[in-house]
Amino acid sequence: MVIFVDVYEGKAKKVIPLDDGKAILEFKDDATAFNGEKKGRFRGKGWLNAQISAHLFRVLEENGIKTHFIGVAGDNRLIVERLKMYPLEVVVRNVVAGSLKKRLPLTEGTELPEPIVELYYKDDSLGDPMINQYHAKVLGISEIELKEMESIALRVNEILRKYFKEKGIILVDFKLEFGKNSRGEIVLGDEISPDTCRFWDAETKESLDKDVFRFDRGDLLSAYERLYERITGDSRS
Amino acid sequence: MVIFVDVYEGKAKKVIPLDDGKAILEFKDDATAFNGEKKGRFRGKGWLNAQISAHLFRVLEENGIKTHFIGVAGDNRLIVERLKMYPLEVVVRNVVAGSLKKRLPLTEGTELPEPIVELYYKDDSLGDPMINQYHAKVLGISEIELKEMESIALRVNEILRKYFKEKGIILVDFKLEFGKNSRGEIVLGDEISPDTCRFWDAETKESLDKDVFRFDRGDLLSAYERLYERITGDSRS
Ligand SMILES: Nc1ncnc2c1ncn2[C@@H]1O[C@H](COP(=O)(O)OP(=O)(O)O)[C@@H](O)[C@H]1O
Ligand SMILES: Nc1ncnc2c1ncn2[C@@H]1O[C@H](COP(=O)(O)OP(=O)(O)O)[C@@H](O)[C@H]1O
Ligand SMILES: [Mg+2]
Ligand SMILES: [Mg+2]
Repeated sequence: MVIFVDVYEGKAKKVIPLDDGKAILEFKDDATAFNGEKKGRFRGKGWLNAQISAHLFRVLEENGIKTHFIGVAGDNRLIVERLKMYPLEVVVRNVVAGSLKKRLPLTEGTELPEPIVELYYKDDSLGDPMINQYHAKVLGISEIELKEMESIALRVNEILRKYFKEKGIILVDFKLEFGKNSRGEIVLGDEISPDTCRFWDAETKESLDKDVFRFDRGDLLSAYERLYERITGDSRS
Repeated sequence: MVIFVDVYEGKAKKVIPLDDGKAILEFKDDATAFNGEKKGRFRGKGWLNAQISAHLFRVLEENGIKTHFIGVAGDNRLIVERLKMYPLEVVVRNVVAGSLKKRLPLTEGTELPEPIVELYYKDDSLGDPMINQYHAKVLGISEIELKEMESIALRVNEILRKYFKEKGIILVDFKLEFGKNSRGEIVLGDEISPDTCRFWDAETKESLDKDVFRFDRGDLLSAYERLYERITGDSRS
């Protein structure tokens, strides 16, 4: 089975290949939720997600995580190492929210005794189903590759959870995507942004992420801006 | 979290506790499918499932698998070792059918390169969702216990797959349930019957299992009787 995918444009970003193994990752202002059923456009979201991702990739690099991040190319664009992406979403959860409520008899907001890692197969026509290591194997992804992605994902969780805690923010859950670079190394790719994470204000439990859009809980842009300000200390230029 | 469950009556069977750690497992004539949405009653199904289960538990015991089976108590009843059941369904698949079509881009009947094992959390109100080892851990089931159940399930698959092949039948997939006995050992419990397995005639690819009922493909009882005759050599008394 062919597993690696070469996508140039997705729902939230565009990949523009450069020579020398790099690519530009352009963040769009479009927002989608519930497998594309709900749609919106928020002018400035692309910029915010690009900046927040860049900031968090830097935090991770400083802590020894190999990421595709090379630099910011102005506005809503990052320069990244071009990867062959695994068709996987690797989700890490610290607190019960979203679809986990349908899988375990626990209510929203329950802190988990230890993090849960979930794998989803990225396939729009199947609706991104949850899979396990046996399904991944059939898709051509070995147990060794999976173990490495899981272990990186758990380290990312430790680093970011601590980082956000110091900012008064709870890292509820997040989704990572991995790829292989030209040297065959597994590298963290894609984005780490309010589109792909759940962030709650530690005091008020307010969402500072895409749930604001999913469940009409207010203004997406102002939630993303507040997150940006709290992690960078800057207010938006 | 409390994990072990003590159910005395389910959709297909009744558990009647005896003293000395045993129980009677009584097989009903009721059939349900699609989480109880479709219902039927087939006089004689309980008898057939009890006999088929007894036969297959004997095959497994002869091949070194520890099961709860002690003996047949006439009609539709088995005598079994009473277990504290894990709230899990352990599914093994050799050929693509049923819900696997919604999880992998493969069509019905595709032979898998190697068996897939899936875990489901038995919880009617959640609709028996698929889970992984991290969810199981939160439910109080350790990785060691899970690994043991998975390894027993794969051995059961090897034994039964070969056994059915010799009878001209393809073992497509099946579901097992495990429990712990009074000595703390993990033991195979529940049933192994056309209600819980997919069996296809190797020549005609006809179903000899509950899919006949699920998808109105003919007479459930005559399919179960044909299976019974092919594995025992007896025709029904
Ligand atoms: N470093 C990279 N090299 C190549 N592709 C990447 C890289 N990082 C992310 N991608 C891919 O870019 C594509 C577009 O992103 P996105 O719009 O978020 O897609 P999707 O709609 O699948 O979520 C995705 O397939 C993603 O995996
Ligand atoms: N050896 C055993 N000891 C105790 N309980 C058992 C044993 N074997 C099976 N069971 C349990 O008997 C119950 C009734 O079976 P069934 O009617 O098939 O239930 P369900 O509707 O949950 O499928 C189930 O909870 C099953 O796990
Ligand atoms: Mg994406
Ligand atoms: Mg049952």
